[in-house]
Amino acid sequence: MKHVLPILFFLLTINITAQTDEETLKTIYSTSLTNGKSYEWLDYLSNQIGGRLSGSLNAEKAVVYTKEELEKLGLDKVWLQPVMVPKWVRGIKEYAFIESSSGITTTVNICALGGSIATPIGGVKAAVLEVKGIDELIALGKDKVSGKIIFFNRPMQADLIQTFEAYGGCVDQRYAGAMEAGKLGAVGVIVRSMNLRLDDLPHTGSMTYGNLPNSQRIPSAAISTNDAEKLSGMLALDKNIKLFFNQTCQQLQDVQSHNVIGEITGSEFPNEYIIVGGHLDSWDLGDGSHDDGAGCVQSMDVLRLLKESGIKPKRTIRVVLFMNEENGLRGATKYAEIAKQKGENHIFSLESDAGGFTPRGFQFDCDDEVFAKIESWKALFKPYLIHYFEKGGSGADVAPLKTDTNVVAGLRPDSQRYFDHHHAANDVFEHVNKRELELGAATMTSLVYLIDKYGI
Amino acid sequence: MKHVLPILFFLLTINITAQTDEETLKTIYSTSLTNGKSYEWLDYLSNQIGGRLSGSLNAEKAVVYTKEELEKLGLDKVWLQPVMVPKWVRGIKEYAFIESSSGITTTVNICALGGSIATPIGGVKAAVLEVKGIDELIALGKDKVSGKIIFFNRPMQADLIQTFEAYGGCVDQRYAGAMEAGKLGAVGVIVRSMNLRLDDLPHTGSMTYGNLPNSQRIPSAAISTNDAEKLSGMLALDKNIKLFFNQTCQQLQDVQSHNVIGEITGSEFPNEYIIVGGHLDSWDLGDGSHDDGAGCVQSMDVLRLLKESGIKPKRTIRVVLFMNEENGLRGATKYAEIAKQKGENHIFSLESDAGGFTPRGFQFDCDDEVFAKIESWKALFKPYLIHYFEKGGSGADVAPLKTDTNVVAGLRPDSQRYFDHHHAANDVFEHVNKRELELGAATMTSLVYLIDKYGI
Repeated sequence: MKHVLPILFFLLTINITAQTDEETLKTIYSTSLTNGKSYEWLDYLSNQIGGRLSGSLNAEKAVVYTKEELEKLGLDKVWLQPVMVPKWVRGIKEYAFIESSSGITTTVNICALGGSIATPIGGVKAAVLEVKGIDELIALGKDKVSGKIIFFNRPMQADLIQTFEAYGGCVDQRYAGAMEAGKLGAVGVIVRSMNLRLDDLPHTGSMTYGNLPNSQRIPSAAISTNDAEKLSGMLALDKNIKLFFNQTCQQLQDVQSHNVIGEITGSEFPNEYIIVGGHLDSWDLGDGSHDDGAGCVQSMDVLRLLKESGIKPKRTIRVVLFMNEENGLRGATKYAEIAKQKGENHIFSLESDAGGFTPRGFQFDCDDEVFAKIESWKALFKPYLIHYFEKGGSGADVAPLKTDTNVVAGLRPDSQRYFDHHHAANDVFEHVNKRELELGAATMTSLVYLIDKYGI
Repeated sequence: MKHVLPILFFLLTINITAQTDEETLKTIYSTSLTNGKSYEWLDYLSNQIGGRLSGSLNAEKAVVYTKEELEKLGLDKVWLQPVMVPKWVRGIKEYAFIESSSGITTTVNICALGGSIATPIGGVKAAVLEVKGIDELIALGKDKVSGKIIFFNRPMQADLIQTFEAYGGCVDQRYAGAMEAGKLGAVGVIVRSMNLRLDDLPHTGSMTYGNLPNSQRIPSAAISTNDAEKLSGMLALDKNIKLFFNQTCQQLQDVQSHNVIGEITGSEFPNEYIIVGGHLDSWDLGDGSHDDGAGCVQSMDVLRLLKESGIKPKRTIRVVLFMNEENGLRGATKYAEIAKQKGENHIFSLESDAGGFTPRGFQFDCDDEVFAKIESWKALFKPYLIHYFEKGGSGADVAPLKTDTNVVAGLRPDSQRYFDHHHAANDVFEHVNKRELELGAATMTSLVYLIDKYGI
């Protein structure tokens, strides 16, 4: 037996070397769809661990679990990179109701936005001022805003085909609404959930107070789209309605957490790094299956699929599971800082953080020359219905790795259902389709294979 | 007021005429996503009516409902086209168990295949012979097959990217398995459900006995994929296990039903017909939302979206909701027969019958010259992420309209999730995403607009 294994290995190597790129991609996709691990990993992360808010026990469980799973893959190196992260906790379930001028109350579904302060003990009740955005709020001025609960109710634009564009056109209300309303003396902010569907689920997400003094910081919550419609409709009939809401969330001291990193060291150019990643933290309302459990397990499987497909990379391929994308980006910042310190040349960094849906392609943040090279591979992806190669964004966690020469990129899955689940209680495992997830992992692996083989 | 309306109308016409195709497609997509009717219609069809098996009360309710809805659109003509359809009924809930050689029983999930006969009263119990396909069955021969329940257990091939190909590679077991096993003296057939997922739902679908005499016809059922795995695993351990199943389905006399048809008569070439359609019947286990409620409501909305977008077609645009695609194709056959009798020139016929998922493009059954013309419009669809224009199939209901000059085509949505729901109890409204459905309707409308404008 002693002599047989090396010969088998040799034959395997020959075989892979002789493969065309078409054949290698076929192997990668076929392996992912028949022998992928991404779905099994996601099942554990979602159903055995659950939501993984930075600083939480679950986030630490996810660090331990994914490190252990990477160690089982026989990579050249697996380690944890320490990073201090913010710890915000939601407290007891939020509660809110509308009170008509005749005193009739109607419960509505809200959740505190990540980073918000609590309401005063016992909650806050005030008249409601509905606005469509921050400009409108500022134009109304202190006299009209002071003492009110500001209701930001600009919906996501339904006729934009890419739902991330619709999100981009709305999210300022959530992120900066409370800061701007606080400056004008408002007592609270309620933001329409970033959701294209009409349903009953409030969608959380990050917000900021900037440098506002504590005295001007006001509590901020998201309201479900159905209840935003209800509140708006009731306001149209009765300007004197009030809104009550109560939340007990708080920002605690930073705690230590980790990025989880594994690598296959390159055989020819070990200091040229190609990284794939997602973020291991999630919001706390669901189990974070789409955002971003999917991106984590796909990235883990990229390294495994390369090995399973018999590919021995020339460059160093790293998976990085970033901690704290959702409310601080501390993991990504730390990773980029250390990479710079060590002089690691990250030639290509790819993130999957747009859900585990059917992959459509990639966006690349790079110059025209590099893009032309990458685009020349597009035809190889046609059998897999990957058609979208565009210049533009990348991913929040890989963006800090961008330099004049280093490329950052993002996987682009179908986006139609993403905001139905984003940051809400229904971002759960059952809404991830196994094949769609596996196709994403294979698509990422295929691109990594090509970049490793041909360089940037 | 009397003078204002014609002027407004004139201005609107001018405006539309002056629009580029890019602008018109933008109007169509935007209208569908912000003012579509498809989702509302589907809600009614699925949740107020439900599964619509040919010959059932629900199928007739669907005929009445869709005709009424088309009449509300102000089309030039709406009518019912009578057609005789088969009436197969499922009877009481099917029941099945595995019995080990030591007499221990394990219940499994089955459903009768459409067109199957009942088991003998009280059910059938026999030893089980597992095969991967019809060839293997025939090779085993009468001696080994006779008296057995044949278990067809060839799974759908997971590494095919287009799931319809995987379906095509498996469905012969379901369609012809009982006919072939009956010839060899088997007493029943159990077929692994046509489903790429492992779950507990049996998937029904049509089967045939061909010209077999009644004496050789045997009952045939589908088993869930999880239970197929269980049965196969138990057989590997214990060759003497038996399977029991009971079903009371029966084929009744044909009954009269209808195709539902509406049209906008062409202003220049009224005898050039462009049709869009889906099939109004469905299987009975779910509510037929994806198969093919989605295709029906999308097709209905094509005519409405043309009107809403201010487009006045030169050719006659027809929506046809075909009856009995699932188990007979009688509606399609009748429609084609009458079209031929009347000398109606169907230049282009498009079916949506692959689910209400995000549209990816179309397949066309046509010659190279026509295909080149159609493909020249592909760039217009790029902003809508429609990238798949291929020669190949069309749809079961429009295929009979194919001639040397007349083109038939099918909408091609993302196929990854389709067979999770196909013909099963989970083909229900909640699994259809509103935006995905509306994008499909807009994609169909856009192609119809271009074909009407430029001809084939």
